[in-house]
Amino acid sequence: MRISWISLFPILALSAAEPADLVVSAGKILTMDAAGTVIEDGAVAVRGGRILAAGPRAEIERRYRARRRIARPDALLAPGLVNGHTHAPMSLLRGIADDVPLQAWLERYIFPAEARNVDEAFVRAGTRLAVLEMMLGGITTYADMYYFEHAIAEETKRAGMRAVLGQTVIGFPAPDYKTPQQALEATERFLLAWRNDPLITPAVAPHAIYTTDAATLKAARALADRYGAPVHIHVSETRQENEDSLKAHGRTPAAYLDSLGFFAGRTILAHMVWATAADLRLLEGRPAGIVHCPSSNTKLASGIPDYRAWLASRVPIGLGTDGPAGSNNDFNLFEEMDLASKLAKVTSGDPTVLPAEKAFRMATIEGAKALGMEKEIGSIEPGKRADFITISTAAPHAAPAHDPYSMLVYSLKAGDVRDVVIEGRLTVLDRRPLTLDPARVLREAAAARARVAASLAPAGRRN
Amino acid sequence: MRISWISLFPILALSAAEPADLVVSAGKILTMDAAGTVIEDGAVAVRGGRILAAGPRAEIERRYRARRRIARPDALLAPGLVNGHTHAPMSLLRGIADDVPLQAWLERYIFPAEARNVDEAFVRAGTRLAVLEMMLGGITTYADMYYFEHAIAEETKRAGMRAVLGQTVIGFPAPDYKTPQQALEATERFLLAWRNDPLITPAVAPHAIYTTDAATLKAARALADRYGAPVHIHVSETRQENEDSLKAHGRTPAAYLDSLGFFAGRTILAHMVWATAADLRLLEGRPAGIVHCPSSNTKLASGIPDYRAWLASRVPIGLGTDGPAGSNNDFNLFEEMDLASKLAKVTSGDPTVLPAEKAFRMATIEGAKALGMEKEIGSIEPGKRADFITISTAAPHAAPAHDPYSMLVYSLKAGDVRDVVIEGRLTVLDRRPLTLDPARVLREAAAARARVAASLAPAGRRN
Repeated sequence: MRISWISLFPILALSAAEPADLVVSAGKILTMDAAGTVIEDGAVAVRGGRILAAGPRAEIERRYRARRRIARPDALLAPGLVNGHTHAPMSLLRGIADDVPLQAWLERYIFPAEARNVDEAFVRAGTRLAVLEMMLGGITTYADMYYFEHAIAEETKRAGMRAVLGQTVIGFPAPDYKTPQQALEATERFLLAWRNDPLITPAVAPHAIYTTDAATLKAARALADRYGAPVHIHVSETRQENEDSLKAHGRTPAAYLDSLGFFAGRTILAHMVWATAADLRLLEGRPAGIVHCPSSNTKLASGIPDYRAWLASRVPIGLGTDGPAGSNNDFNLFEEMDLASKLAKVTSGDPTVLPAEKAFRMATIEGAKALGMEKEIGSIEPGKRADFITISTAAPHAAPAHDPYSMLVYSLKAGDVRDVVIEGRLTVLDRRPLTLDPARVLREAAAARARVAASLAPAGRRN
Repeated sequence: MRISWISLFPILALSAAEPADLVVSAGKILTMDAAGTVIEDGAVAVRGGRILAAGPRAEIERRYRARRRIARPDALLAPGLVNGHTHAPMSLLRGIADDVPLQAWLERYIFPAEARNVDEAFVRAGTRLAVLEMMLGGITTYADMYYFEHAIAEETKRAGMRAVLGQTVIGFPAPDYKTPQQALEATERFLLAWRNDPLITPAVAPHAIYTTDAATLKAARALADRYGAPVHIHVSETRQENEDSLKAHGRTPAAYLDSLGFFAGRTILAHMVWATAADLRLLEGRPAGIVHCPSSNTKLASGIPDYRAWLASRVPIGLGTDGPAGSNNDFNLFEEMDLASKLAKVTSGDPTVLPAEKAFRMATIEGAKALGMEKEIGSIEPGKRADFITISTAAPHAAPAHDPYSMLVYSLKAGDVRDVVIEGRLTVLDRRPLTLDPARVLREAAAARARVAASLAPAGRRN
């Protein structure tokens, strides 16, 4: 007996529903695609760590047979946030040195605390605390610069988080490697070990032009280029840095780096508070992005950038928290969006500058561009990595609901994040972390706190 | 049989424990008294709405027999926060007009939205939403300026919150009263009705010098003085206001008010962004306080004050959220503390300016002084009104715990507030509001949102 195609059609149509690992629906999906598409009553289907489709909920639910469904009619669904610059393990040094002069901050607190405490175990515990806080606050990708970066990579991957991890190369003895040469050799092993990992992008992180000599900067760039890895570096954070560069090299820090051929490959420039118009023009032609850290730049009194010049340039600009040890003191991208937008308005004297949607783009797709990852993350589009979050709009501070971007930037909080999906995997479900044990992480933090405090006590009171 | 005093002694000693309504213990009590006393493992005893004592937990528990005990070993206990300037019912206009030019903000959004929507029912629903958000975020006293202030008083008192409520007097037809004369008459009835209330301090609120003429300003002051009530007014919010005042009166707004004898009685000056050195000297001799609203001043691009000059003066300076309709958009004093501290640092180029403890004083005892209420609230001291909060330090963003002031200003959030006591009464217990029904409040907000949106739609799309 032959079965006609016609008679089979209903069965095929039913079984033609494609399998999916996960479907998440929400009251509103902010895709952050180029057109700024917002889907009312929408859903996202995920398979194999990638986004299969995003569209009206009814259509997605008809098209996909999901192993797991999550419905959040009272929530916004948006791409996971991108924290483009931090030093994750410094979470354990949170609050040890606030409201102190800049020189004392580094020399009396941060450097001694790091010299006396930072080892691989410290870095692992600090990474766990940082990743826990970041995930609970909706961050799905972070870009780091610290020591023992291989340990940070292992802890981050174990927690299921995405990161661009830059092993520090610096011109003085660091907690992990005593010379730039040793650091460069270790960084090569790090790049080899982690290339092609779906979550971890290994990177090279020469600290800054004032702590790393020209030969080391060039070697770091060359090493990164051999592995197609990004370089992550602090640039033009303070006015002093610019003035010193002009004296020493006759150029701004960015122009000096360019003169070394530094921007031939992918570069993540943290801060750039004191970027000149010429610096911005120079970067427009390069595979480079800026990461703005408004909390750090204000708390450390580093300065406020010329937002109008930044926004007029074609350089992608993301947002970062910087480290939490005096320069912030948390990993909260909701606060960075809000602060950047307010600083932009008050310093330009114009409340229309850096509107909410633009600030949210900086925290998502622009941040992805700044890391060179816009083809993989930063928006809700088919084929991209499934990194997204839901944000509850049920709190009194979110009511009544008008514009979703205004809500995200000016009134919703990190604490409103409800679910987090990274690489298609739920890492936070209804505010509960699924990949880290908060009680253990907090116990480790308390133990570290006692050690750090003792290590900073005056010599006479140390025992 | 005679019973000797000796044999009775143990019974007497036991019953000698004084009765208390409530004892709350916490890991650390920040009293915010003049000496900055911090009590480790402390407790506060409350009776009849007043603080009986604060001290070591063991001692307080021995001395007082409490009807109710709350133990928060992982929390900080501090005075309730003082929101020194807001327009509570504008909660229902939250987010209707962000990122728009200042003129359009007022004329195209706020004024039409108020003209078409603000009536007594709107004000009641808006007050409930605002009070709910404020209490959940640790605010125990707020100073308001709006319309239908008697309705705001009733709703605030019903929710068990403390407030200084200023009935607006303004030189054009307002949603409640059509002339300043009508407003002044109504304000007198309001002052009479609420004088001597334990929670509500009625006040007179002439809007600003640019919306209220000299005769009305003088009449408002005289009315307030007859009842010993404070006056609440916007002063020197924008550069334009200062320039216009110099043109019209040959004086700054504060000097102009002084020339009218305005500062003879208690005055709450909201904003004062553009205060001159002479303005500050003038206020030092008066029963006046400034309320700084950093979110509003940045978001509306009004300006950033000269913090060093402010901090060098003897004028008490508190913090306020301003209204949430475009100028903020929430009632979050944790964010105001953090923002003020960061703005002070970056604009003075010195990270030691406005340290965390000082910022927390602005949110508590200094805010109380700015309202003229420092004898009643703002610190944990025997005899004061029992207005205090506990703040959990169990979240990852609060770990590890170093300095408590740094934690409060730079990393803890409004969402970390766990319990709220006002006038000795628990209004929030373990994050649950006890005096308001959140589901009802949010339903009302959603209904108001629909009405407001329809009222602002272009005429052709209105029906």
